[in-house]
Amino acid sequence: MSCASERIFQAIAIARYAKEIGADAIAHGSTGAGNDQIRFDMTFLVMAPGVEIITLTRDKKLTRKEEVDYLNEHGFFADFTKLKYSYNVGIWGTSICGGELLDPTQGLPEDAYLKHVTAPEKETTLKITFDKGEIVAVNDEKFDDKVKAIQKIEEIGASYAIGRDANVGDTIIGIKGRVGFEAAAPKLIIEAHRLLEKSTLSKWQQYWKDQVANWYGMFLHESQYLEPVMPDIEAMLTSSQRNVTGTAILKLRPYGFETVGIDSVNDLTKSKLGEYGETQTGWTADEAKGFIKVSSTPLRVYYGIHKDEKR
Amino acid sequence: MSCASERIFQAIAIARYAKEIGADAIAHGSTGAGNDQIRFDMTFLVMAPGVEIITLTRDKKLTRKEEVDYLNEHGFFADFTKLKYSYNVGIWGTSICGGELLDPTQGLPEDAYLKHVTAPEKETTLKITFDKGEIVAVNDEKFDDKVKAIQKIEEIGASYAIGRDANVGDTIIGIKGRVGFEAAAPKLIIEAHRLLEKSTLSKWQQYWKDQVANWYGMFLHESQYLEPVMPDIEAMLTSSQRNVTGTAILKLRPYGFETVGIDSVNDLTKSKLGEYGETQTGWTADEAKGFIKVSSTPLRVYYGIHKDEKR
Amino acid sequence: MSCASERIFQAIAIARYAKEIGADAIAHGSTGAGNDQIRFDMTFLVMAPGVEIITLTRDKKLTRKEEVDYLNEHGFFADFTKLKYSYNVGIWGTSICGGELLDPTQGLPEDAYLKHVTAPEKETTLKITFDKGEIVAVNDEKFDDKVKAIQKIEEIGASYAIGRDANVGDTIIGIKGRVGFEAAAPKLIIEAHRLLEKSTLSKWQQYWKDQVANWYGMFLHESQYLEPVMPDIEAMLTSSQRNVTGTAILKLRPYGFETVGIDSVNDLTKSKLGEYGETQTGWTADEAKGFIKVSSTPLRVYYGIHKDEKR
Amino acid sequence: MSCASERIFQAIAIARYAKEIGADAIAHGSTGAGNDQIRFDMTFLVMAPGVEIITLTRDKKLTRKEEVDYLNEHGFFADFTKLKYSYNVGIWGTSICGGELLDPTQGLPEDAYLKHVTAPEKETTLKITFDKGEIVAVNDEKFDDKVKAIQKIEEIGASYAIGRDANVGDTIIGIKGRVGFEAAAPKLIIEAHRLLEKSTLSKWQQYWKDQVANWYGMFLHESQYLEPVMPDIEAMLTSSQRNVTGTAILKLRPYGFETVGIDSVNDLTKSKLGEYGETQTGWTADEAKGFIKVSSTPLRVYYGIHKDEKR
Repeated sequence: MSCASERIFQAIAIARYAKEIGADAIAHGSTGAGNDQIRFDMTFLVMAPGVEIITLTRDKKLTRKEEVDYLNEHGFFADFTKLKYSYNVGIWGTSICGGELLDPTQGLPEDAYLKHVTAPEKETTLKITFDKGEIVAVNDEKFDDKVKAIQKIEEIGASYAIGRDANVGDTIIGIKGRVGFEAAAPKLIIEAHRLLEKSTLSKWQQYWKDQVANWYGMFLHESQYLEPVMPDIEAMLTSSQRNVTGTAILKLRPYGFETVGIDSVNDLTKSKLGEYGETQTGWTADEAKGFIKVSSTPLRVYYGIHKDEKR
Repeated sequence: MSCASERIFQAIAIARYAKEIGADAIAHGSTGAGNDQIRFDMTFLVMAPGVEIITLTRDKKLTRKEEVDYLNEHGFFADFTKLKYSYNVGIWGTSICGGELLDPTQGLPEDAYLKHVTAPEKETTLKITFDKGEIVAVNDEKFDDKVKAIQKIEEIGASYAIGRDANVGDTIIGIKGRVGFEAAAPKLIIEAHRLLEKSTLSKWQQYWKDQVANWYGMFLHESQYLEPVMPDIEAMLTSSQRNVTGTAILKLRPYGFETVGIDSVNDLTKSKLGEYGETQTGWTADEAKGFIKVSSTPLRVYYGIHKDEKR
Repeated sequence: MSCASERIFQAIAIARYAKEIGADAIAHGSTGAGNDQIRFDMTFLVMAPGVEIITLTRDKKLTRKEEVDYLNEHGFFADFTKLKYSYNVGIWGTSICGGELLDPTQGLPEDAYLKHVTAPEKETTLKITFDKGEIVAVNDEKFDDKVKAIQKIEEIGASYAIGRDANVGDTIIGIKGRVGFEAAAPKLIIEAHRLLEKSTLSKWQQYWKDQVANWYGMFLHESQYLEPVMPDIEAMLTSSQRNVTGTAILKLRPYGFETVGIDSVNDLTKSKLGEYGETQTGWTADEAKGFIKVSSTPLRVYYGIHKDEKR
Repeated sequence: MSCASERIFQAIAIARYAKEIGADAIAHGSTGAGNDQIRFDMTFLVMAPGVEIITLTRDKKLTRKEEVDYLNEHGFFADFTKLKYSYNVGIWGTSICGGELLDPTQGLPEDAYLKHVTAPEKETTLKITFDKGEIVAVNDEKFDDKVKAIQKIEEIGASYAIGRDANVGDTIIGIKGRVGFEAAAPKLIIEAHRLLEKSTLSKWQQYWKDQVANWYGMFLHESQYLEPVMPDIEAMLTSSQRNVTGTAILKLRPYGFETVGIDSVNDLTKSKLGEYGETQTGWTADEAKGFIKVSSTPLRVYYGIHKDEKR
């Protein structure tokens, strides 16, 4: 996700700048094998139609060695040693390719990761506060700048080496690829946000939000950020967040974390109508029985007619 | 999930037995507050229509004290001390109610859990082998009896205290409830299975399997196992598993685990068509460019007509 | 649909009025068999909690005869002859119950309908103009008042006896019911609107709009207008309509109509990129071949590994 | 739909034959503008990998005139007059391109259609009988051969000029196209089948069947018949049809038809539990009130906490 959204917004910024300066062409260094060529090309084709797209690495199938030789010949020297892994570091985490990941039976070893357990305490509490679904505070410290809030969470989470994973996913080009991640901030923020949503959204708000958010993530990954449906989904997501206000509490420990609880004025579990597992106050025993009787009607109808259907 | 499916199958077995012996009535001890009354009543109403359902605890709003007094009066003595937590232990894990969970800002303390870290090694490898989506071996040991396989995984996972969580969910009766879990086996099996699916199912098989499986879980939870759509979903799920054969490898450590990889003859990432991030062999640079050009057509059409739409 | 939404908005207005005047109780005349009792009761329970709901017809299982006798005894006389059919007339059409509909093999005869073919011409053209999805003109006549626009369309359509149907649907209470309709306006408006959407929405806008609109209709029918997800869906629908501006043209004839076409500045079929079935201008033959080659990658991967899977 | 599925099955048959005879190449005459090139190419790439695909019309951008000239030069003479419309006739109906359809504001005139009203009676009854969702009889005449049954229905429906429409849809290549249809058989069969399903499927069977069937149709149209998810969806659809047995009755008149009713042993509306709109027997007034009270719980909880949320 991290890489996908970065590329799109880089591409949009580049397309705008190209139009602004009246550029005839845009060059990018993607190969012909992966997702990024699509994110760049597609955005340029749509937002800067008529501007030529130059992609020598793709067109000439340049190998890494050819590229390094060319740079050296032209006076550019640096440590071009091919790393065992290739890293892509962004605000939303680091993606890792290569190495053991090329063998589907293996995971990444400790030294493939850039962040390691450095926290002095064995565990710590992390509190993330949201206002209408957006982060406004971390451990009670207010953040006006959301990027700084994300970086704060990343710093804390990374010190526990949280957010490591290797994922097999479908590339836009149709093959499956395997990528490693270390992404403490998104892992922690997503879980904290979900924890708060579970107590502040209705059942069906959660159901539909999950439906469209799942699609939104897929489309963002697949270079479809500009698809006209995306603002429609954004409108639904924004509406769904109107009550997602409060603090989610997590307990971090090396390599993982657990949820603790939430504190929200919109907490629907605090209703006086009933307490799960205790004597209820929102309805009587007879009302519950009536509810069950009527709720069972479709099944009573069905099995009344299909007496032989086995389950 | 654990508790939900157990109750349904208990209820179906009871309904069958009641019809077999020609019973006039069935009694159960659920209160009027929770999900279980629905699972029992609804199943009896549908599968044993006309049989009376007796539920004294619900009808008389009996408190725990009244129940204990009655039992003592009638000569039944036992340690009826109300526990701080109420546990529900089943093959798919233990659910925990009460205690700190009644305060939405708190999680369960270590001593609320029945299982604790007891494994001698700091980490261990767990291999679960599936054949068409069903477990057939654990750490290379074959299991004909799936229940025994689950118990084996539970034993290994529980020794690392894996599968703890507290979940806020919607009860059938409409309020939100909070329940703790320690469920090592389902946590590990679900992740292992998903890991294998990611490499053996197509993108759209995964998408649709997730859609219907999500609904299936919700309906099973909500006492709708007998809904006629359930066999339809089961047919789709069964078909989707035709290639989910192979071994998923996990690395367990205290309170958590990470995915390592999979080994499967059906692994779609092993295709010779392309290797993600490397020079591709399944298409040329020009073919990739054609793909991107044509794929961008709907967006080029849209933004050609809506030049002012901002993103 | 007509009846469902009317009841909800009637119930909301009544609940507001009851709170305004500080009423102790609200009475309604629904029986215990159908949907309307739910729409009234549920809205009152939610919007006017604590106000008593009085429903004599339901509680005393009053028959029609008992009701008429009571009225006569108390000095109310009118033509209470039970009609063969029971009608429910609203702005969105008329629903018809009873008569032949009680026999699943029969439809309604001509004389069961209130509207009959009266138009002098054998066919006529109907043009409905939308602005961001809302009706603004009918046959080029501007309407500020949407209700008047609907009534105009109803008048024209009813003169061709358009919009008749009998529908079997699921009631909220769980049984299936059969209801006849004559609803010219909604039938014509929905089709005209869809026609315009087909040319102005992207493929995925249509897909997702259909998904959530389908659910919205079901929830509105099922007395869930107040469910918190409804404003979320409304936000998505509103966003999706930002380009649904233009005129849809229909040709009406007795008992039916056909679509003619649309006229819209946002018509995506008018793009210069390609004309379906003609020589294309938005891409070359080689680009099309590249598109197909790459698009086929997931299938080439799959069948490369599953050579024996038969279709 | 007609054309889409025909092309796929033609392509599969051709691919099989090419492999059988060890062909080095397959030729087809599609242009580079439309859907059919994708259906052919993709199927060949997947099912006959390595076989060359020859497409002169596409590669050389041949115009119709060039093709005719070539044929004449090589001794092939026929009436190659370009028709105003281009027709594609198959078992599932005729698709029509060109003519007035190129103007989005116009529909097709009467003489663009191949079938016209020829039935001697002003209206007629059509009965289609299904067994587990498949046609077994038409007007009580048994058909073992489903193709013959479809042709019989087509013959009856076409004599009333039923099934005309013009549709704007998304091509696989990404532009929107407009195609006319005259497809009496599918129109009548789909509606008859749906009518029977409404009375024999549960609410959620219909919901999920519609979800997956919608996707199935889209994927079949888009040359994705070979996608591995398709057999999964087929399994679900097959299961859903287990009770779709009975006869649907339609009344045909020129250019249209209406539904009459159904006759099925599996008709769920015939349950003794309740008759819609009449005094119910499946539950009491108190049970209905309990049902409503408990069903309203999530909304009572929500609005209890969000007293200011306006609807």
